[in-house]
Amino acid sequence: MITGHTKIFAIIADPITQVRTPEVFNAYCAGRGIDGVLVPVHVGAEGLDAVIAGFRQMKNLGGFIVTVPHKTAVASLCDELGAAGELVGAVNAVRRENDGRLVGNMFDGVGFIAGLKSQGYDPAGKKALLLGAGGAAGAIALALAEANVAALTIANRTPDKAHNIKERVLVHYPDLPLNLGPPDPQGFDLVINATSLGMKDSDPLPIDARLLTPVMMVAEIIMKPETTTLLAAAQKQGCSVHYGRHMLDEQIRLMADFVGARI
Amino acid sequence: MITGHTKIFAIIADPITQVRTPEVFNAYCAGRGIDGVLVPVHVGAEGLDAVIAGFRQMKNLGGFIVTVPHKTAVASLCDELGAAGELVGAVNAVRRENDGRLVGNMFDGVGFIAGLKSQGYDPAGKKALLLGAGGAAGAIALALAEANVAALTIANRTPDKAHNIKERVLVHYPDLPLNLGPPDPQGFDLVINATSLGMKDSDPLPIDARLLTPVMMVAEIIMKPETTTLLAAAQKQGCSVHYGRHMLDEQIRLMADFVGARI
Repeated sequence: MITGHTKIFAIIADPITQVRTPEVFNAYCAGRGIDGVLVPVHVGAEGLDAVIAGFRQMKNLGGFIVTVPHKTAVASLCDELGAAGELVGAVNAVRRENDGRLVGNMFDGVGFIAGLKSQGYDPAGKKALLLGAGGAAGAIALALAEANVAALTIANRTPDKAHNIKERVLVHYPDLPLNLGPPDPQGFDLVINATSLGMKDSDPLPIDARLLTPVMMVAEIIMKPETTTLLAAAQKQGCSVHYGRHMLDEQIRLMADFVGARI
Repeated sequence: MITGHTKIFAIIADPITQVRTPEVFNAYCAGRGIDGVLVPVHVGAEGLDAVIAGFRQMKNLGGFIVTVPHKTAVASLCDELGAAGELVGAVNAVRRENDGRLVGNMFDGVGFIAGLKSQGYDPAGKKALLLGAGGAAGAIALALAEANVAALTIANRTPDKAHNIKERVLVHYPDLPLNLGPPDPQGFDLVINATSLGMKDSDPLPIDARLLTPVMMVAEIIMKPETTTLLAAAQKQGCSVHYGRHMLDEQIRLMADFVGARI
């Protein structure tokens, strides 16, 4: 029940009707007895500055979730960024401090790691191959380093973007064996597809699936379809697989805690 | 269940924890199958402009309710005011048009009339004595005129404020017998206390209760205590009485409809 005591949260997006965060976030609060409510806020790029300025002045706003197309623009409107948000130049959750300051961060990476762990897989000590070098890949690279992988290789068609992620991750984890390389899974324990290949059934595979072996864990961040052609091919090769939805499931918990949805 | 399709509404106030509008408004929506949710927004005077500017840019915001201390300031931030809002220079509900324009109005008066009618009392043709000349009194004076009272007398310690209301009501209802007068209920059918006298038990009565007779209806807009000393005295004199809460009950329905909480 929403009362005058209820802490408020928002998700900003354009369009808005497809977002699932209100259902998931509010169920999270209800399940834990947290007196908070998250509402969808539909705002276009032209109105973003004004909405964020308004959020700063709402004293009972805990924070807000950010999704397409505002993740990069909101990062530049924050007063402070966490390491992952800084690294990728984008945020998907922002906490409002009591004085109105906005602290943003990107939870794709820590959400992905928490998702792996929720399924009983700990990446510590593993050799990881990360496919892609977009925003999600950057956040995942940082989180893999934080999770103590033994080594990390980033494979991307555009080496510049992969190089950029490498440089930025090494700032925080200078001792990590971090290389750029081809999309060849041989010798790796954990293969992560952070490209957009697989969202459409007609997409080519991001790697040569014949090189996958049963000792490997193959992970996706694509949520639809749940079983991408890569995961189907990996299962055929006898690999363990990890679905994209786990990243989102765990992110909600982490973001809710970050924006202050606590008892 | 709040989803990406849910229309959002707010109540702005400072402080916020005492507001009851979220419970009442959301129960109203739930009872009618309206996919809308109202949340409390705590904003101080210093942040009001920014919050209102942000509201303009929220495309799925239907509108918002305004309460202490923002009713006058928000009136000046609206693009358009209804007659009652214009008359009292204050608003308690604002609709957001699709283009971001803000249309405000004051629902104390129409809410009061709707409250009377909800209890089976139609003020049409009645002679009314209105005690007080504050914002609520101004809105009630206009609504009494609109409800076709036969005559209206305004009694206030400061004649200037009563005179001002008279002038403004006569703009809209030039044929109404509208006078200023003493707080003497003799000869009236309907006596309305729109002063703040009665909020404390130690307050003096706004009229001499000995002059009340059983043919009279005595109405309050004070909600706490429910039975003010005036209403208690009126009951003792055999009058019908009308409680302050009815004004609020009916206002929610009128304001919800105004801000677009409809199926």
